[in-house]
Amino acid sequence: MKVSVGISARHIHLDEETYKILCGDKKIVNVKNINQPGMFVTDDYFTIEGDKGSISNVRLIGPLRSYNQVEISLTDAYKLGVNPPVRTSGDLEGSAPIKITGPCGSVYLPYGCIIADRHIHLTKEMQKFYHLEGKDKVNVLVNTLKGGVMFNVDLKISDEAYFEMHIDLDDANAFMLKQGDIVDIIE
Amino acid sequence: MKVSVGISARHIHLDEETYKILCGDKKIVNVKNINQPGMFVTDDYFTIEGDKGSISNVRLIGPLRSYNQVEISLTDAYKLGVNPPVRTSGDLEGSAPIKITGPCGSVYLPYGCIIADRHIHLTKEMQKFYHLEGKDKVNVLVNTLKGGVMFNVDLKISDEAYFEMHIDLDDANAFMLKQGDIVDIIE
Repeated sequence: MKVSVGISARHIHLDEETYKILCGDKKIVNVKNINQPGMFVTDDYFTIEGDKGSISNVRLIGPLRSYNQVEISLTDAYKLGVNPPVRTSGDLEGSAPIKITGPCGSVYLPYGCIIADRHIHLTKEMQKFYHLEGKDKVNVLVNTLKGGVMFNVDLKISDEAYFEMHIDLDDANAFMLKQGDIVDIIE
Repeated sequence: MKVSVGISARHIHLDEETYKILCGDKKIVNVKNINQPGMFVTDDYFTIEGDKGSISNVRLIGPLRSYNQVEISLTDAYKLGVNPPVRTSGDLEGSAPIKITGPCGSVYLPYGCIIADRHIHLTKEMQKFYHLEGKDKVNVLVNTLKGGVMFNVDLKISDEAYFEMHIDLDDANAFMLKQGDIVDIIE
């Protein structure tokens, strides 16, 4: 069955305490909703830093969460000199350390940097509707000039969801996919 | 069957006339052989430039050829603001224009910039040995944490070859492959 593609550029999630250290008294602003219900891009940008380098203008995705998380691609990881595991959002134990700097301060996270796994957002109802009950991973067929199959695409079930496959920029560019392109869940 | 992976970072091939414009009277130097027989990395680096940006330190691969060709990834293409097609090396008609600057001068190539297709170097004898006669494309299975299948991997037959699959840095990073990793030709 078909699913549309959402491309996740590198981004950050923060908890309230860390946001305060980095941004002071500023309030978080919803600049634009993204497809997943309740989530939005903000006007807060940070610099992330590893042993070998830094990357600036990394955007905060709102709302604030109960944890800090930096999602990057492997290309970013090489540039920064960090060694993040491939993980589901929120599964941060033993993930890579990283430094974040904002307009009002810096934090060194002892863990929190990951390469987000390829995943599809859906509800339990969608899982049933699309005959994906009992599955937690699927394979996805990509029909582009540099097409192929992506293995291990995680089914990420939540109460509210926009049916969409999220991939990082490395996958997007390798497979020549753009935001909103359509791919096929094959099993 | 198994084949090892060779990762092609962005690079340039030049003809003699263009090399002279860019590098003057300097002679091309073999710094280190690469796996493909007769080919080598040089000590010549150039800046490539498109409508939106430039990338420096792009290495010349020797020896000199009968044509000019700049091989980049889609990530590079976005940065440069160029729109290269996915092509086999040497198939340059209608490919993207690009500017190259060296220590002694610049050239504007009206065409020559491509995204190299995924390809496997082999001889006719290897093609027979590996039961790939009659095929010009294969699919390749990648067993990594971000694994999958790459479609449309071109079989590139030459008189001399080191049996190796060449991919660009976008594919390498998306699939988490490193130089020398082993993948499977599946059909």
